[in-house]
Amino acid sequence: MHRVTFHPGGREAEVPEGTTLLEAAAAAGVALASVCGGEGICGRCRLIVRRGQVETGPTLLLSPEEVKGGYVLACQSRVRGDVVVEVPPESRVERAVTVDLDAQVFLAREAEARAPFALAPLVRKLFLRVPRPTLEDNVGDQERVFREVRRRVEAPILQAGLKVLRALPRVLRENDWRVTVTLARRGGTMELLQVEPGDRSGEAYGVAVDVGTSTVVAHLVDLVTGRTLDAEAKYNSQRALGEEVTRRIIAAERQGVERLQALVAQDINDLVSLMVERQGIRLADVVAVLCAGNTAMIHFLLGLPPGALRRHPYVAAALAPPPVRAAEVGIKVNPRGLLYVMPGIGGWVGGDITAGILASGIHRAEEPVLFVDIGTNGEIVLGCRDWLVACSASAGPAFEGAGVTCGMRASRGAIAGVEFTPAGIRYEVVGGGPPQGLCGSGLIDAIAGMFQAGYIDRSGRLQPGGDRVVERRGELAFVLVPGGEGAREIVITQRDIENVLRAKAAIYAGISILLREMGLAVDDIARIYIAGAFGSHLDPRNAAVLGLVPDVPPERIRFLGNTSLAGAKLALLSGAALDEAQGIAERVTYYDLISCPYYYDEFMAAKFLPHTDLSRFPTVTKALGLGEPV
Amino acid sequence: MHRVTFHPGGREAEVPEGTTLLEAAAAAGVALASVCGGEGICGRCRLIVRRGQVETGPTLLLSPEEVKGGYVLACQSRVRGDVVVEVPPESRVERAVTVDLDAQVFLAREAEARAPFALAPLVRKLFLRVPRPTLEDNVGDQERVFREVRRRVEAPILQAGLKVLRALPRVLRENDWRVTVTLARRGGTMELLQVEPGDRSGEAYGVAVDVGTSTVVAHLVDLVTGRTLDAEAKYNSQRALGEEVTRRIIAAERQGVERLQALVAQDINDLVSLMVERQGIRLADVVAVLCAGNTAMIHFLLGLPPGALRRHPYVAAALAPPPVRAAEVGIKVNPRGLLYVMPGIGGWVGGDITAGILASGIHRAEEPVLFVDIGTNGEIVLGCRDWLVACSASAGPAFEGAGVTCGMRASRGAIAGVEFTPAGIRYEVVGGGPPQGLCGSGLIDAIAGMFQAGYIDRSGRLQPGGDRVVERRGELAFVLVPGGEGAREIVITQRDIENVLRAKAAIYAGISILLREMGLAVDDIARIYIAGAFGSHLDPRNAAVLGLVPDVPPERIRFLGNTSLAGAKLALLSGAALDEAQGIAERVTYYDLISCPYYYDEFMAAKFLPHTDLSRFPTVTKALGLGEPV
Repeated sequence: MHRVTFHPGGREAEVPEGTTLLEAAAAAGVALASVCGGEGICGRCRLIVRRGQVETGPTLLLSPEEVKGGYVLACQSRVRGDVVVEVPPESRVERAVTVDLDAQVFLAREAEARAPFALAPLVRKLFLRVPRPTLEDNVGDQERVFREVRRRVEAPILQAGLKVLRALPRVLRENDWRVTVTLARRGGTMELLQVEPGDRSGEAYGVAVDVGTSTVVAHLVDLVTGRTLDAEAKYNSQRALGEEVTRRIIAAERQGVERLQALVAQDINDLVSLMVERQGIRLADVVAVLCAGNTAMIHFLLGLPPGALRRHPYVAAALAPPPVRAAEVGIKVNPRGLLYVMPGIGGWVGGDITAGILASGIHRAEEPVLFVDIGTNGEIVLGCRDWLVACSASAGPAFEGAGVTCGMRASRGAIAGVEFTPAGIRYEVVGGGPPQGLCGSGLIDAIAGMFQAGYIDRSGRLQPGGDRVVERRGELAFVLVPGGEGAREIVITQRDIENVLRAKAAIYAGISILLREMGLAVDDIARIYIAGAFGSHLDPRNAAVLGLVPDVPPERIRFLGNTSLAGAKLALLSGAALDEAQGIAERVTYYDLISCPYYYDEFMAAKFLPHTDLSRFPTVTKALGLGEPV
Repeated sequence: MHRVTFHPGGREAEVPEGTTLLEAAAAAGVALASVCGGEGICGRCRLIVRRGQVETGPTLLLSPEEVKGGYVLACQSRVRGDVVVEVPPESRVERAVTVDLDAQVFLAREAEARAPFALAPLVRKLFLRVPRPTLEDNVGDQERVFREVRRRVEAPILQAGLKVLRALPRVLRENDWRVTVTLARRGGTMELLQVEPGDRSGEAYGVAVDVGTSTVVAHLVDLVTGRTLDAEAKYNSQRALGEEVTRRIIAAERQGVERLQALVAQDINDLVSLMVERQGIRLADVVAVLCAGNTAMIHFLLGLPPGALRRHPYVAAALAPPPVRAAEVGIKVNPRGLLYVMPGIGGWVGGDITAGILASGIHRAEEPVLFVDIGTNGEIVLGCRDWLVACSASAGPAFEGAGVTCGMRASRGAIAGVEFTPAGIRYEVVGGGPPQGLCGSGLIDAIAGMFQAGYIDRSGRLQPGGDRVVERRGELAFVLVPGGEGAREIVITQRDIENVLRAKAAIYAGISILLREMGLAVDDIARIYIAGAFGSHLDPRNAAVLGLVPDVPPERIRFLGNTSLAGAKLALLSGAALDEAQGIAERVTYYDLISCPYYYDEFMAAKFLPHTDLSRFPTVTKALGLGEPV
């Protein structure tokens, strides 16, 4: 066994000879950037070996200077002795604080979204003064408690497990027949989860989780008041097994889904324990967890075999898995607390989208609404109260900051907004301080601004000349923030721009196809909702300049933030909302873009700014004075 | 550690210094007779020490000759070294074969009782040809299977656990989408218990169990045809902790209910494994177990704390416990198979009586029916379709053969019927062969016969004189079967007669009180059903001569055998029957005899043959020419 020490921080792991540094980092609890999942392709998991012996292979992803300076790719380097390494800033995965952003967006929207649903959480506590038994009224303890419960809530089918029944007689008699019961909705029945002494009805908490491919975001919710108490986020540790969903499915097939399950359970545990500690709440009082995520993430979370998801016709093991004991999948809350998941729509349109529809209310809209959720993929929903169709565009994670040189999550230090003014480029950094990189909303602003200012042409090609367009590592790059004096240089390379254009083209093509299949024109869209956790706000005009969404009047475009989490929270707080989500999931028609005969044409045509066919973007064309097709 | 060896059989146990021989017997799996539960009171657990050292206390329950011969009481003797003991015949608890009797009674009645219920077992298998997914129809595997199930059976709420969902994708794809699902009714919902490859719908079995205080009887049932395939019975191993229910509750409070749970689970496992082996059935195809028993037995079985059952106002932890996984309480059938229990009526009137009502159909009767279940206690139900009342008479186990010198269960070797003829006494032995003792029905016949023949007077006193009435161990005894030449002498002692009269008095008093409380006369009783596993048949006239039941025309009295098991089987085979049982359990009003102000008077008056008040037994009085009150 060799000891591997990671600086800064000094975290250590004891690992066997031959372990890769990427595996050692995972063992030490050090989050390393990795997009490819350890295949030596992405070049993100850079480390500097300070002491000790590692065996590393040749790579084109490091410059000769870097190799000389001790740089290695963690995934390609095997431990041959005790090693001390340094994690350079670009390889660090921060414990992101996206949530201050998300929370803001939510605070404004929560009340609005919750409006149709009364507060009736999936799990609730009820204080009971149980009448003492007499010879005339000597039904069993279980039946006596059930009778009291039914006097208070509607619960035609009430059930209790042996654990609760075994404890019941003692708890009732030792506490003068005053107890607090915890009741959980469970697929049309109500389960008596636990019985506590005295009145503990005020202490009931739940956690809503958005299990994203890149980031796991959790909100701690007071189930009594419905208020959000705290929020936390972190990168999904499964990233070490691949940035993309498909890579992770392959990893699950090769190594067992248990590995992925353990990773995400630990992520959720980390978030929950941070929040309960900060709020001074007993972990045992967290009685419900509701997770929303894409179908693969939910399979990993529950340990369901995901293999069929990546093979035609992309079938889930279960789209609406039942509530299970959270402990059964390694989530540490109350040992009898339940884990619910948002029902999914299909193999590639998951419960996160069901949650998004629920939170945004598209399914109740009178006129067609377009909903675009930009995460690691781009999922698109079009519809209203009468019909709903959805598709998934393989946009890749560019808008989440992955696959982009200076890309990062919308966390502290991220440039979330960029404005090109005559006086220069102004940018807004999340949490203030020096910028560390660019998140999705910043990228959209920057590229739209670069286009409008003439730094790139309609095909996205950087125009050489001036101080801003320079050469970096053999390709052209736009310097958004010059480096120096400890400040990091933030650039957008030609390849970054191409990545973003590919991503936006995939999404726009999906939108375009759904509209055409439904026989709708752009003008028929009453509203466009953009969802995602890639920034605190989005300038609707820049989204249109980029050609990410159709050219509609900006007031019709609205940025909703993380609707997966918003919907999860709605359902956690209201059984009726979860029922409605189930109804939504069953109603949405999945449209498979891959089998659309004209998808490729639509995609290629959309790779221009804003689009090959300028007639589709009349407002943008007019405003920018474009006028001529490429 | 010392080794204790039990002969005949040579079973061994390694036990620590100071262990009692009774405990060592339990550890070695040797069933010893014990009525008092190891308190040194009953004198039933006699052993002969052949070799080795034990420390034993003084007792009046062994004669000086016996002590000289090596006899000890197992419960009062502690191991001080390696020991070899012999279990004399009178201490052996045979693996009883009551069931050949029960089965006969059932075969005649099964079709009749099942009539109102269609065959729809609680757990069933269904072979499905699941349509393959396509891009147009790509719901999840769970949803696809549920959809097929719903095409075949009504199941508004269908649920599946993670274990099943995890296996589902592989089983479906490896078997060409042809699978057999096992579906279980579970409190208003339907659970998908397991998915098997191919068509296994013909292999579904269940076990109905009567968990009696003295004996555990199990029937193996084919859930597809509804046919009973096999039957087995054995003494309840909990007897080592006390013959009476109250003693076992105390044992549970002192030593933990887990001990009692393990014992009865092992008994059920023994019976099940015997039957499945004999029938060549896979244990994994036994998917349901339904147990009926008194409330305490069900508490022991499920590990529920029974303490409140023996304290005013005699409250159960649960009267209608939910179905649980059989494995959860140590019952070895299919690991996901369910254990159901018959809902109970109250602390002292259990699910065995609910089963009895269900099987006998009292709850549908147009005119009042009296139902008497004679087991270790005597439970009495009076009622019809409009009302039902029940009480429990602490009759003790005399009719089950305990507390009676030559008493035994209605198993092989038991005298089950006695007839006094001018040519002598004729008796019927279960299974033929030499008689080993007397079971309940034999005792009733014998004492009624002794009374009619003048061997005892109306107070039950043996009349000295003649060859039949002799002295044994300082008291008078009636020699029913003379011993000699290896044959066992079978006697009924004065104390035995008193025990039986006390038992019958308790039952008659209960009947009498229920009738009075309901304002009914004996003539109002349309029918008397006697239930219990104490014999293959019962002569109704002798039951009346004894004064066990009211004096009605003999054709109104009917012996039903083990109705607890019959009802359990009905429910196992029909969800509607289980629902009906739940309705019955809720409808029955419990009447507490202990708090009845005139119970003692009724009891004392009923201790005579047939009763102090001869006007209550006009037919018997006339037939026997009694005429004079005592």
